Amino acid sequence: MLNDILNWRYATKKMDPSKVVSEDKVERILEAISLAPTSSGLQPFEVIVVKNPETRAKLRAAANDQAQLTDGSHLIVFAAWDKYTAERIDAVREQLETERGFKNEGLTAYYENLKANYLVQGAETNFQHAARQAYIAFGIGLTAAAEEKVDTTPMEGFDPDAFDKILGLRERGLRSVVIMPLGYRDASEDWLVNLKKVRRPRDEFVKLVA
Amino acid sequence: MLNDILNWRYATKKMDPSKVVSEDKVERILEAISLAPTSSGLQPFEVIVVKNPETRAKLRAAANDQAQLTDGSHLIVFAAWDKYTAERIDAVREQLETERGFKNEGLTAYYENLKANYLVQGAETNFQHAARQAYIAFGIGLTAAAEEKVDTTPMEGFDPDAFDKILGLRERGLRSVVIMPLGYRDASEDWLVNLKKVRRPRDEFVKLVA
Repeated sequence: MLNDILNWRYATKKMDPSKVVSEDKVERILEAISLAPTSSGLQPFEVIVVKNPETRAKLRAAANDQAQLTDGSHLIVFAAWDKYTAERIDAVREQLETERGFKNEGLTAYYENLKANYLVQGAETNFQHAARQAYIAFGIGLTAAAEEKVDTTPMEGFDPDAFDKILGLRERGLRSVVIMPLGYRDASEDWLVNLKKVRRPRDEFVKLVA
Repeated sequence: MLNDILNWRYATKKMDPSKVVSEDKVERILEAISLAPTSSGLQPFEVIVVKNPETRAKLRAAANDQAQLTDGSHLIVFAAWDKYTAERIDAVREQLETERGFKNEGLTAYYENLKANYLVQGAETNFQHAARQAYIAFGIGLTAAAEEKVDTTPMEGFDPDAFDKILGLRERGLRSVVIMPLGYRDASEDWLVNLKKVRRPRDEFVKLVA
């Protein structure tokens, strides 16, 4: 039950550095991230999985020294496309055509229209749009990890320029937007683990137009 | 299994207007949306649930006449805070203190620091940040609906200014960012239902730093 999974997860503050998330669990989490819906199916981001301890130590230094980056066993960096390009959009359409085994005028027109709209917009507008799509997948990835009883810490508190440099993202047309360490909670050392999960009152958060 | 649920869902193109999503299912979907993690626990958005058919007809006219808005039985509008304010942030902290039953210097300092950082930023920057948080919950909401075997169509193709006007959002400090009709697929009339779900090749979408 999804809501049980969501109640189990929390932003883990202390991970146990002796525990390693198995690759089959990581694979199912990545599959969920890949299955996340995105605008026009573009999936306008990449998912960088960092296992290398030295690289994670460098990234930790650029993330307010948050220990989960090295106490976890994997770090997933969501890096959005810095802009939309004709090549990127055409590649998505071509993949659709190849895997479905046919071309279709409607589909061609759809993606031509998308290019006409997107390519005249500034890179920053398009990057912001791409970043939002990454956040859809980010939420689903956190959920998928929790289903595997893998702990995560959703994090925006890092220096994206430093991350981009360490991971060589800008030269590949990418910008880091949000990160997710994977690991296992060290419940005895985690101040948050036993605190009540609090959400805004339902009648302020949800409004009904009946 | 989450990945089975994610494979079941798709952006439903034709919904059956004779079918109504039951309120207990809607409630569990809203609960999942509420449980979504957000930056500093702010949940900086509201969830507007529109059942009223006349209102949905007006909204459909402002959403490229997409029929799912009226063929579905409910429309969920995610409306982000237009900016961060001291009042909004204080209310979240106070709720935390009330529900957990104690105050704490660290927590007070954390939210004071958050205000110091956020309130000097422009409203647009803060709105964009709030919108990203809504997208985390949006992804989780789509997943929760699929678990209930409720169909959805993730949609950005609507006129946010018109939506804000119809729903009276701006005067409440909100801006619509993304919408989700809920309903049931009309498989016999839906061109997409039987087409293969296509995702970018794994080796382009996921990069390993081992």
